[in-house]
Amino acid sequence: MRYEELRQAVWRANMEIVDAGLVEVTWGNASGVDREAGVMVIKPSGVPFNAMRPEHMTIQCLSSGEVLGGSLRPSTDSPTHRALYHAFGSIGGIVHTHSPYATSWAQAVKALPCLGTTHADHFRGAVPITRSMRDTEIASGYELNTGAVIIECFAKNRIDPLQVPGVLVAHHGPFTWGSDPTEAAVNATVLESLARNAVYTLAINPAAEQPGRELLDKHFFRKHGPGAYYGQDAVNQTSS
Amino acid sequence: MRYEELRQAVWRANMEIVDAGLVEVTWGNASGVDREAGVMVIKPSGVPFNAMRPEHMTIQCLSSGEVLGGSLRPSTDSPTHRALYHAFGSIGGIVHTHSPYATSWAQAVKALPCLGTTHADHFRGAVPITRSMRDTEIASGYELNTGAVIIECFAKNRIDPLQVPGVLVAHHGPFTWGSDPTEAAVNATVLESLARNAVYTLAINPAAEQPGRELLDKHFFRKHGPGAYYGQDAVNQTSS
Amino acid sequence: MRYEELRQAVWRANMEIVDAGLVEVTWGNASGVDREAGVMVIKPSGVPFNAMRPEHMTIQCLSSGEVLGGSLRPSTDSPTHRALYHAFGSIGGIVHTHSPYATSWAQAVKALPCLGTTHADHFRGAVPITRSMRDTEIASGYELNTGAVIIECFAKNRIDPLQVPGVLVAHHGPFTWGSDPTEAAVNATVLESLARNAVYTLAINPAAEQPGRELLDKHFFRKHGPGAYYGQDAVNQTSS
Amino acid sequence: MRYEELRQAVWRANMEIVDAGLVEVTWGNASGVDREAGVMVIKPSGVPFNAMRPEHMTIQCLSSGEVLGGSLRPSTDSPTHRALYHAFGSIGGIVHTHSPYATSWAQAVKALPCLGTTHADHFRGAVPITRSMRDTEIASGYELNTGAVIIECFAKNRIDPLQVPGVLVAHHGPFTWGSDPTEAAVNATVLESLARNAVYTLAINPAAEQPGRELLDKHFFRKHGPGAYYGQDAVNQTSS
Repeated sequence: MRYEELRQAVWRANMEIVDAGLVEVTWGNASGVDREAGVMVIKPSGVPFNAMRPEHMTIQCLSSGEVLGGSLRPSTDSPTHRALYHAFGSIGGIVHTHSPYATSWAQAVKALPCLGTTHADHFRGAVPITRSMRDTEIASGYELNTGAVIIECFAKNRIDPLQVPGVLVAHHGPFTWGSDPTEAAVNATVLESLARNAVYTLAINPAAEQPGRELLDKHFFRKHGPGAYYGQDAVNQTSS
Repeated sequence: MRYEELRQAVWRANMEIVDAGLVEVTWGNASGVDREAGVMVIKPSGVPFNAMRPEHMTIQCLSSGEVLGGSLRPSTDSPTHRALYHAFGSIGGIVHTHSPYATSWAQAVKALPCLGTTHADHFRGAVPITRSMRDTEIASGYELNTGAVIIECFAKNRIDPLQVPGVLVAHHGPFTWGSDPTEAAVNATVLESLARNAVYTLAINPAAEQPGRELLDKHFFRKHGPGAYYGQDAVNQTSS
Repeated sequence: MRYEELRQAVWRANMEIVDAGLVEVTWGNASGVDREAGVMVIKPSGVPFNAMRPEHMTIQCLSSGEVLGGSLRPSTDSPTHRALYHAFGSIGGIVHTHSPYATSWAQAVKALPCLGTTHADHFRGAVPITRSMRDTEIASGYELNTGAVIIECFAKNRIDPLQVPGVLVAHHGPFTWGSDPTEAAVNATVLESLARNAVYTLAINPAAEQPGRELLDKHFFRKHGPGAYYGQDAVNQTSS
Repeated sequence: MRYEELRQAVWRANMEIVDAGLVEVTWGNASGVDREAGVMVIKPSGVPFNAMRPEHMTIQCLSSGEVLGGSLRPSTDSPTHRALYHAFGSIGGIVHTHSPYATSWAQAVKALPCLGTTHADHFRGAVPITRSMRDTEIASGYELNTGAVIIECFAKNRIDPLQVPGVLVAHHGPFTWGSDPTEAAVNATVLESLARNAVYTLAINPAAEQPGRELLDKHFFRKHGPGAYYGQDAVNQTSS
């Protein structure tokens, strides 16, 4: 099997979003990339998750989208994934879901505010919401243009996609990414939890606010970057 | 066993709504139709789902409701199902549930608004709410009249039951349909998810609105009709 | 084992409320009665549900509360159960839970309104809330007085406990009953679902109201009494 | 294995919070203490729960935090745990989670009010919220200072940590404790249920209030202290 390892990894990430309870019916897809080979592997379109095997993962040229072998059609969201891989040069996996709470923030056309340390542990600041797409962007090249509004959103707001590895597409739902497909799936799981907690938090206190930058950065950098001291692989061990 | 295949299909759809978490106690029922033979097969009344087997599915004349063999009494909602099969000529399966969120929209006497692309993928526009039934309609022929108010609702609002395969009966709960019993069960599952997401969405933003028609139609027709390009069976392959 | 059948039935009802997801930690209890023998069987106090066997069910004199054999102490709520068996002469089983939604209506000190046909299928009208207990009623004979405020609530409001087989005790939680322990457990399950649906319904439409009496009675009497035509045991078969 | 029994107990408590549904990703940790030996045992940092075995539990000096043998780094929250063991002299186990509802009260920066008898059975009065931490407290010694604000909160408000075995850390989440790690885990489970029920209760009735002291103390002391008569181990048997 060509690109066997990558297909295994993409298949596994697709299963991980099912196991995490993020998938209903056939909604959602995970992809991964081999930048040296110039290929993207992604879930086939509309295939039931429980019937899917690694060999069903489709392969396409990362630049052109041309399908490279196999008989199954790739996810209709493929052009969105390819656009993100081009724009965000160091990511290795992308996940798109219709998970309930994250989708609801997208439908509400609201950025997900950073309301506590659980959020700050994973995303440095709010998870942004894209602008609504224009009719002309929808009529032609819709999936490619979905990628374009995400990229525009990060550029305009000067957000680093490695510090905020996810976005809410207005009226639609979340995309998350990471260094590989599994990290993208973990970020999809975390995003759904944060989206749920933010709904609860605002129900308890509609005036709840983002805590100070000092606390948020403490948590983000406790887990990310050269000063990280959380987990077993971190280089520096500053407090415990 | 007479109509063995249809009984299997109806039994399976009844089990699918259980597996999807839509059933509590003995609430809910699925039916299927054999239009050539002029019969409807439906779940028996008040039998626990976990004790039900395909051979317990009851058979009745689609026109008269006369029970054709078997010792179990059919669902009390049979006249509603028969009325819908008569009015909506090309449907092959119907599901009725008391699933929590869809039932709550029905109890709130509110149509379920189309708030995003997840909804638009499956239902073209809002899922309508019937008018309340009159005391005379309740006193006599209640179940038949439940069908009548559904049919009236689609006619008055000029809604195509194939584009909006479901309804909320005021104060009561949802009915969904499809080309066969399993498709009706999938639509019941999707409707419950959409009903839940709409509650979350309005909690986040009480002013959330239906997105533009261009986006909704893009999603609906990406999955339905001659221009569909989602899934493995679609005829045309327009973008990926 | 004395009263073996009743102990089996009470044990089973205790397990049914666990299986229905109504129990957290050791909260909740089910009892049953043998009116001829003058005994009540109830769950022991504070014993983990997963370690409980039928022989652990405690036996007491229905009139005096005297424990009849066995080494385990009965539920502290025993005097409440005994009071209800005395006042509501034809019931055979009682269940008390701290199920989340029903408990929340009790904590909110609000009766559970009848907002649709799912409610009307099981309870004829609102599930009432007791008045708050007085300090003197709490200081001495607390559990017995809990029974007394329930009985007072049904008498004052002229509610038939066979048509409304449950109550919310203010600041505390629900009690339900039935012809036997299993029916009481089913009513506890249904009450929790109705309590949840009412929260959702009022979130969607804060002005949601009880539908007309004609519809409610249609549903209640479709399932209860001499004119019932739901299920397989009903005597009359009026519409299907 | 050194401190084998304590490591088993701490490992078990870590698994209990997973089984209770309080853990997402790698969020949360449980610890236990051997006061005679002067050691604390705690979960390793960032290790997946499903791969964790008792021998992975880390050991450190209760006073200095020095790691005593083993190759895994202890939880980054260790200094918070050690501070609480020093201040609250008779506790034997501590649990920290990011459970959804308790975390949301913490993010809302609101104490969890005591709205009914389920709460009063376990916590005597509201579960307090700490003040927000100052930038200087965050910049250096963050985890130790997290313990300090908890201790300050109980001292300032004269709350007995044995009667209120838990706290909400502002913008962060809950800590609970008990006589041993399992009791701390049970209190974490109960706190999450109470936090959820309080959200539901206030949704039903935004004016819901704490019931009178007589009722709350009745329930708390029915289960705790020399007059307790709930469960099988209580000394006095006052009413049943």
